Amino acid sequence: MATTKPKASTKGLEDLFLDGVKDIYYAEKKITKALPKMAKAAESDKLVAGFKKHLAETEAQVERLEQVFKLLGKPARGKTCPAIDGILEEGEEIMDDYKGAPALDAGLVAAAQAVEHYEIARYGTLIAWAEQLGMTDAVNLLKATLAEEEATDEALTQLGEGGVNQRAMQEAA
Amino acid sequence: MATTKPKASTKGLEDLFLDGVKDIYYAEKKITKALPKMAKAAESDKLVAGFKKHLAETEAQVERLEQVFKLLGKPARGKTCPAIDGILEEGEEIMDDYKGAPALDAGLVAAAQAVEHYEIARYGTLIAWAEQLGMTDAVNLLKATLAEEEATDEALTQLGEGGVNQRAMQEAA
Repeated sequence: MATTKPKASTKGLEDLFLDGVKDIYYAEKKITKALPKMAKAAESDKLVAGFKKHLAETEAQVERLEQVFKLLGKPARGKTCPAIDGILEEGEEIMDDYKGAPALDAGLVAAAQAVEHYEIARYGTLIAWAEQLGMTDAVNLLKATLAEEEATDEALTQLGEGGVNQRAMQEAA
Repeated sequence: MATTKPKASTKGLEDLFLDGVKDIYYAEKKITKALPKMAKAAESDKLVAGFKKHLAETEAQVERLEQVFKLLGKPARGKTCPAIDGILEEGEEIMDDYKGAPALDAGLVAAAQAVEHYEIARYGTLIAWAEQLGMTDAVNLLKATLAEEEATDEALTQLGEGGVNQRAMQEAA
């Protein structure tokens, strides 16, 4: 009697790439909902302006992903991404726990940097895969977004070190 | 009749720092549980070796965090971190969905890089806060870990681009 081994998955890099694009598409859409809340919660004018600027960028990033779906010949559809759900949940915790507190903005900067780093990881991976797949147009779209995420992360570092962290400490004293 | 405004939180940077240390302590401990599963799932010998090496590093990182708790005069205690739970859940999905598939290792590299970037974000923030708080010993401990996380991320990029992504495509053809 022949035993049948469970059929091994034949999923290759293109499947992985499509799954990854769906994951970050879901994530970007969630981020467009989170950023207005973060902008509303922030105390520092510069941080509010930073969140608003990044909201506009994020909306354009969603559109770039829709172009990537088109290049793949697939409908633009997200796939639940527990990672971004968890990261944003931590941002909500900061807004609740630090409401009105001296350290609120420092916490918001940290929450936003966790979001940016998740995106930097995912876009970095997607670019490497798109290169391997020879999808030059997708590479260019994804690189444009990655550059924005890296610039946002850097701007947040500057905001933190340029006064937000200090205020969190001084006012608490 | 006087209305009382809800009392504003007075939480400052030291509270935020302690919360952040608790968050990453929980995360590191979860990662020590996830890495053996990832090492077991990986196909490439180099990737298996990479996960095992990083497990040893992660165990030392947990001990460094225990030293930071000591510097703060607080018991070493984690705080549920939905972000790492979500990130690791996505890693589990890859292991399930791509079991036996050509793209499994490429997916595992991506999952591990999402973990590394979460840690890079958190340690970067904790270092900035510890500097602001004048906690030089904590800064040094956290910087030692950050350097390891960055080196691990770079090693994973090399593994991906050095053959893992290519194999994911070739075998699927």
